[in-house]
Amino acid sequence: MCLLRYNNFVNLNDLQYILQHNCLVGINKAVVAGVSGGPDSLCMLDVLWRLGYPVIVAHINHGLRPQADEEANFVQQEALSRDLTFVQEKFDVRGYAQKNNLTIEEAARHVRYRFLFELARKSHAQAVAVGHTADDQVETVLMHLLRGSGLAGLGGMRYHSLPNSWDQEIALVRPLLGSWREEIVDYLKERCIQPVFDESNQDRQFFRNRLRYDLIPELGKYNPQIRRNIYKMAEVLRGDDELIQINVNLAWLECCVEQGTGYLGFAISSLRRQPLGLLRQLLRRGVKVLLPGLRDIDFEAIERGTDHIKSHRQGKIELTAGIYLLVEADRVWLATQEATLPLSQWPQVDSGMACSLDIPGERHLSGGWVLRTWVIDANDEITALAGDNLDQFQAWMDADMIRAPVQVRRRQKGDRLQPFGMGGHSVKLSDIMVNLKIPARARQGWPIIVSGEEIIWLPGYRIGEMVRLSPITRWVVHMELWRIEKS
Amino acid sequence: MCLLRYNNFVNLNDLQYILQHNCLVGINKAVVAGVSGGPDSLCMLDVLWRLGYPVIVAHINHGLRPQADEEANFVQQEALSRDLTFVQEKFDVRGYAQKNNLTIEEAARHVRYRFLFELARKSHAQAVAVGHTADDQVETVLMHLLRGSGLAGLGGMRYHSLPNSWDQEIALVRPLLGSWREEIVDYLKERCIQPVFDESNQDRQFFRNRLRYDLIPELGKYNPQIRRNIYKMAEVLRGDDELIQINVNLAWLECCVEQGTGYLGFAISSLRRQPLGLLRQLLRRGVKVLLPGLRDIDFEAIERGTDHIKSHRQGKIELTAGIYLLVEADRVWLATQEATLPLSQWPQVDSGMACSLDIPGERHLSGGWVLRTWVIDANDEITALAGDNLDQFQAWMDADMIRAPVQVRRRQKGDRLQPFGMGGHSVKLSDIMVNLKIPARARQGWPIIVSGEEIIWLPGYRIGEMVRLSPITRWVVHMELWRIEKS
Repeated sequence: MCLLRYNNFVNLNDLQYILQHNCLVGINKAVVAGVSGGPDSLCMLDVLWRLGYPVIVAHINHGLRPQADEEANFVQQEALSRDLTFVQEKFDVRGYAQKNNLTIEEAARHVRYRFLFELARKSHAQAVAVGHTADDQVETVLMHLLRGSGLAGLGGMRYHSLPNSWDQEIALVRPLLGSWREEIVDYLKERCIQPVFDESNQDRQFFRNRLRYDLIPELGKYNPQIRRNIYKMAEVLRGDDELIQINVNLAWLECCVEQGTGYLGFAISSLRRQPLGLLRQLLRRGVKVLLPGLRDIDFEAIERGTDHIKSHRQGKIELTAGIYLLVEADRVWLATQEATLPLSQWPQVDSGMACSLDIPGERHLSGGWVLRTWVIDANDEITALAGDNLDQFQAWMDADMIRAPVQVRRRQKGDRLQPFGMGGHSVKLSDIMVNLKIPARARQGWPIIVSGEEIIWLPGYRIGEMVRLSPITRWVVHMELWRIEKS
Repeated sequence: MCLLRYNNFVNLNDLQYILQHNCLVGINKAVVAGVSGGPDSLCMLDVLWRLGYPVIVAHINHGLRPQADEEANFVQQEALSRDLTFVQEKFDVRGYAQKNNLTIEEAARHVRYRFLFELARKSHAQAVAVGHTADDQVETVLMHLLRGSGLAGLGGMRYHSLPNSWDQEIALVRPLLGSWREEIVDYLKERCIQPVFDESNQDRQFFRNRLRYDLIPELGKYNPQIRRNIYKMAEVLRGDDELIQINVNLAWLECCVEQGTGYLGFAISSLRRQPLGLLRQLLRRGVKVLLPGLRDIDFEAIERGTDHIKSHRQGKIELTAGIYLLVEADRVWLATQEATLPLSQWPQVDSGMACSLDIPGERHLSGGWVLRTWVIDANDEITALAGDNLDQFQAWMDADMIRAPVQVRRRQKGDRLQPFGMGGHSVKLSDIMVNLKIPARARQGWPIIVSGEEIIWLPGYRIGEMVRLSPITRWVVHMELWRIEKS
């Protein structure tokens, strides 16, 4: 329901409807109401009380202004005169701001919500109610606009937020979100309720106040309906955003194939199939999943990410707030600097000694990878496939040229290979790995097949010249490296 | 590709990329370039020419300012010095504005685009190119914001618009949409190209100029990055809008089940299943389909429409610009005042004489409806169903009480029915129809079954008391009205 009257009293019937249908608040369970004593929160308190909600009145004493104690007493009086529970807490906001390198506004916000939700949890309340109005909504949307926001920010606040940044189960509700400041003032006047006057609300040091007292009236010169238009725009955009989130949910299920501490793994082919708008949203959600506290996600960061994914380049780029994006073979990783990415999409040998390889036989490596060997007759049909082999994780070798012991091991300093077809020229293994674009983090544990002292196969690349098939080959050793579980 | 350099020259390589990938313009077919002689269009002309596009330079002489002819000559010189075709047309914009009740700005816009696209069609051009810049984009988005726009408006202009309001096959392209005015000025300076100075660009009577010279600098005080932020926001929102349009396309196929001159018919059950955001978008698209010329669709109108659909009320409400929304049984109609809505979802009898009804037999009515009659034994099992009948388009009557001729006809003035079960009380047919909520437009042609002079059945309601089944009934006439083709 959308209340857009002007100069009209806040109507209790409308608010009952809103509390029930928009805020989803029931009458039988406590609601913690954050009450500063200003007109908005005082009006909300009175409305909740008149409609019979079991309210716990919560007041935070920021200790920022000399009148703070007086105000706390006033709110207490308002609560007690209505027979409502009153809880207050004092907090050194200035100190908190300095310690956490926040603005006073941000610090006050943190402290306030933390207190309200802690109280709600302790008192088994269903929701925390705050007094944001339609005017606050307009200011919030304008702030997002000035900062450069996407759809989510332009949609502004919601009547009912769950989950929210503060709790997974206790909703944050805003019953007055559809009421204008003028209506609230009239409501209070009619009932002879005298709110506290907070002169910091007129302090132009606070960005929000500059919007309220300077920018919005200025915009009103261009269109007198500006507040109403922005309010309605936000409402429509919230609907659009919900629609998009349905798409994002589906695409997420398709694209995000691995998740661990500090990282997310996406299937690159699925990501590349998404329309640009959806790809942006997926990255945005990815960053949010990794850093739930981050308030604004940099537009440029998302743009760098989508460009990188669409460009078919491999490698790592920094995104934002310490999160990087890494394109690696068929994966796009989104991760914090501290995360250890899984290596399971690469064959890896555990550190330690080399281990012997039976022929025929099989050897399980980590991450679900298996190395299997067979011996086949050189005249067997399957041998003919060797010439056409495109799978770099299969190899065919001349059995007579292989000397025991055959082993799988990690690379060692100075390892060299004489790759098949390069005239016996010997190449440094590390150079080959770089050329093959084997990601740096996978090179150390990459399996290498040795026969005696000689490297006979670098899986993912070629066999050694020494074990190549020739017209006089009688028996062929066929090796294959593959992965049992695919994530 | 997104160009967001400041104080940088417009770069020909970047623009080549943009023309190819964002504007989708090929090098082998003509492009009509709208050139006023101001910096933007002159820069665009020079860029297109340097990149080898076959340009037709089109200039419209609005006849608004004394220097108009001089400017036309200037643009002609610029075209001819580059060996390009030049076409101009004079137009009395002031007269056109007065005649069509438009502002000078709107009239100039109409006239300009009509001319450009007519020229493009005549010269088999692939596209019309106009010189909108990143600054124009920011201004456009702000205008939409002030006016109260949805996602589509906030996304601003596109590099490539097709279809557009002017043509279905010729694209409207904006190669400079990613270039800032400063860059364009530098580009021209470097090449010693001196554009025309149009002092009307500084006239504060034009809303756009007030935004450019007053509002945007004002917003810059709140965030110096404001132009860049709004530009980027628009870019992201365009992507979001594309995503939503994919959803709308799918939902449209599901919901819009009838379409004719001036009307669209939606299946109400399908509409009600859609999330609110999608329902809004469907209505918005519906209005656009009916009135392609309408530039702004009123937010309130869409809100009234979605409220009406969700409210489960029947009936008609005015939406916007002469379009109304009508909920009627299982249909939601969106229509212009002049449209004649189809009646096919209702049984209707063509005007003219009553027509006889054979028993047993069948009679085809209009709109695919059929009236069928059978005679069955009163002891037959199927007769027992009569008592439980919930389908108001089926009836069971005592055959012995029916007198020839049995006819189907339209209602006549003074028609009355003694409905079964009302003790022989006679009711005006017109009152019954109103109570039944048969839409007014369907009442005139509604089929009525008469036996002799007596109305024995009003399909959709009850049989007459006279033909009711009784313990002594021997033969039963079973009538059914149903529709063969369902739309």
